[in-house]
Amino acid sequence: MKMAERSRGAAGAPSKKAVKKSVRVGLLGLGTVGAGVAEILKKHQSMIDQRVGMEIDVVRALVRSKKKKRSGVARGVEQTTKPSDIVGAPDIDVVVELMGGIEPARTMVLDSLMAGQSVVTANKALVALHGTELFRAAKKSGADIHFEAAVAGGIPIIRTLREALASDRITRVMGILNGTTNYILGQMAKGNSYEDALGKAQELGYAEADPTLDVNGRDAADKIAILSRLAFGTSFKAGAIEVQGIERLTPAVLADAKSLGYRVKLIAQSWLAKHGDQEVVHAGVFPCFVPIGHELSAVPGAQNAILVQSDSLGTTLYQGPGAGGLPTGSAVTADIMEAARNIRAGVRRQLTPASVTRAPKLKNLGQCSSRFYARWLVRDEPGVLAAISKVLANNGISLATVLQYGGGESDSPVGIVFTTHETTNAQMNKAMNQIKRLRSLKGGGNVLRILGKKE
Amino acid sequence: MKMAERSRGAAGAPSKKAVKKSVRVGLLGLGTVGAGVAEILKKHQSMIDQRVGMEIDVVRALVRSKKKKRSGVARGVEQTTKPSDIVGAPDIDVVVELMGGIEPARTMVLDSLMAGQSVVTANKALVALHGTELFRAAKKSGADIHFEAAVAGGIPIIRTLREALASDRITRVMGILNGTTNYILGQMAKGNSYEDALGKAQELGYAEADPTLDVNGRDAADKIAILSRLAFGTSFKAGAIEVQGIERLTPAVLADAKSLGYRVKLIAQSWLAKHGDQEVVHAGVFPCFVPIGHELSAVPGAQNAILVQSDSLGTTLYQGPGAGGLPTGSAVTADIMEAARNIRAGVRRQLTPASVTRAPKLKNLGQCSSRFYARWLVRDEPGVLAAISKVLANNGISLATVLQYGGGESDSPVGIVFTTHETTNAQMNKAMNQIKRLRSLKGGGNVLRILGKKE
Repeated sequence: MKMAERSRGAAGAPSKKAVKKSVRVGLLGLGTVGAGVAEILKKHQSMIDQRVGMEIDVVRALVRSKKKKRSGVARGVEQTTKPSDIVGAPDIDVVVELMGGIEPARTMVLDSLMAGQSVVTANKALVALHGTELFRAAKKSGADIHFEAAVAGGIPIIRTLREALASDRITRVMGILNGTTNYILGQMAKGNSYEDALGKAQELGYAEADPTLDVNGRDAADKIAILSRLAFGTSFKAGAIEVQGIERLTPAVLADAKSLGYRVKLIAQSWLAKHGDQEVVHAGVFPCFVPIGHELSAVPGAQNAILVQSDSLGTTLYQGPGAGGLPTGSAVTADIMEAARNIRAGVRRQLTPASVTRAPKLKNLGQCSSRFYARWLVRDEPGVLAAISKVLANNGISLATVLQYGGGESDSPVGIVFTTHETTNAQMNKAMNQIKRLRSLKGGGNVLRILGKKE
Repeated sequence: MKMAERSRGAAGAPSKKAVKKSVRVGLLGLGTVGAGVAEILKKHQSMIDQRVGMEIDVVRALVRSKKKKRSGVARGVEQTTKPSDIVGAPDIDVVVELMGGIEPARTMVLDSLMAGQSVVTANKALVALHGTELFRAAKKSGADIHFEAAVAGGIPIIRTLREALASDRITRVMGILNGTTNYILGQMAKGNSYEDALGKAQELGYAEADPTLDVNGRDAADKIAILSRLAFGTSFKAGAIEVQGIERLTPAVLADAKSLGYRVKLIAQSWLAKHGDQEVVHAGVFPCFVPIGHELSAVPGAQNAILVQSDSLGTTLYQGPGAGGLPTGSAVTADIMEAARNIRAGVRRQLTPASVTRAPKLKNLGQCSSRFYARWLVRDEPGVLAAISKVLANNGISLATVLQYGGGESDSPVGIVFTTHETTNAQMNKAMNQIKRLRSLKGGGNVLRILGKKE
């Protein structure tokens, strides 16, 4: 019998053998976060030992090349290029996956879980896309999987949903789950173009060389998929929900927001609703007009923030750094400590998502209603506004405000901006498709949802 | 051997006998929160059973009178007037203390812990004043004590400090820990007098008939004492730190704040500092000028919010309802679930405060520095401003802004308002005592700390 398996008894019935001297950790990856974790565990060793009740040893790390120069604590960590020295290895109790990407991370995590090793991962794409498979493997083998760092860096939102809100009925989770886009939108609100703002984000290390998954909303979609699973038990892939990025926004849109009393934020959300008799879950990622005064309107720089609404607790807000080596390292370390405590106690986490057996189904947004903002560029000629208004009226959409910018110069297009009263997504989409076909249309077509004060 | 004792083995070495069918809860008190807990446990029973892995039964409740009419789920709970039917009773695993006050709550909680029963309490005064004694008793008997609801209602700050930040070095905890005063200050910012604002808070149920402990800052002081213990391992009684309430504030002070770009908030805080070679903890509760844009400046109504600063994570914010039956009930229920999970697993929480053995000592604020705001009422005569300025200069305090209000009418006093650059508490106190003795002084003397943008 492998040591790693011996470290826990049958679920719920731990045996005396479970008591051991130290919990042995293997790292898959020794980059910024991996080195940070080794650093934190070393730096706060006595405090951590005291809290966990036993020592935590980083035994070895899987690396691509042993020749790479490493500094600090990472230099002292034994290195290997063979996955089997960690995955399923008899002297490793906790496998910490920090490679990112789907493969080979998925196979290594599954193999570790099936070998009875606890897994800690910071890999949001992996948990979002393959969560069901991972949780099933963990349940089957009696191993634990922890993934606090996968969503919102160091903000303890996973722990909060799993534990603090464990007795509550959560009705909505919404937030700013991508720091890169929040930083870019902040720069654009100061009048910078999207390209300049992105460039600055890259300079400061907030955005990667290829920022596609950040700016197109897919990163946030993966995260809201993970949170939906924890909040509602509803599992879906990020590709199944409506996702809009920020690439097509212009400084003009952000200036409109400001003059109307809003800030533009990329909001990921997921909420319970009734569809006839049935309870369903809606989810999406969109740039939104967030009213000034709303908790999410003031989230600065590259921070993340999450609002949770629930029956008993009402609305709570969690805000902090959403990325970065140290916050991520801190979240990973807290997970390792929890895995270690459970191993010491001979128990599993026992915190599977709430209502896995009868989770509400995901439902598209067609019948959800919202207020909308839209901006179009049109030829400066008589009757344009009348044509647009007519399309909206024909679709049962009533206007709240209309603004027209520019004009006067021959041939230069003018901006038409309007906001609507509440209407459904389906109606708005239909109207927008009709407006796109109007002869006078020159471009634009930014359509953003407007959040309510209390949403 | 009592059943309650049988439910857990020796610490860290749980035995197979630990597996049992349900966790049996006894409530000390069946008021709003007690009834709410019974209600939540009943309403979400299947979800909770699923998450905990076993049933949680509310077996009985200690009440003052069995004759009192009760409604809802509470009506079905067996009632007793004999403490020994719960405290140390063989058929109760978890004792939930909801009586408030020190005695008899303290004795009952101690007796429960010593009998090996896990305790959940929402009693901040008890944990703040007798924490050391309670934690010691829990450690000795191998029982658990949970107190999430004692600080900031449903905001999971205790859990976060104990677990999410477990591997981090916390350097500062600061927040709005009293919803009543936050509501009153919000009303005063709109121009209401302190008395009117308090009356309105009482009408809405935000303030009790006797609001003394809220408005004089003692409630917040108890809470910051609890948080300091968790964050730094430093234990002190609320009476040992400097505490100022909001009773002496006037709408003029809140108007000054607004015109200078601040909001007035009652801030409780505790932080690490160096005193020579030694690490020390400072703590206090004061109404402060909080710059607009600071995370704590916009906390609305009766909400609570807590900022935590730590080495790895940086700054994180936790905000939500700080009181109320449902949020408190939700926090208590989450604690009961955790106690139940630990009983099921046959383990203790293993999460004693970090550095109990070498915790930094509490140190008074004398040498701490801050910017200050002050408002005085003086006789409208030549030389007053010169006299005040001279006192400040003699104490090495340099002025940032000076404003003078009113005047012109004979005999009506004028308001003198000034803000200082950074100076120590000791110097500021000395100067204020000298100003108080000036012949021209007619009253006032509101002195408030000014927080920095990033504090």
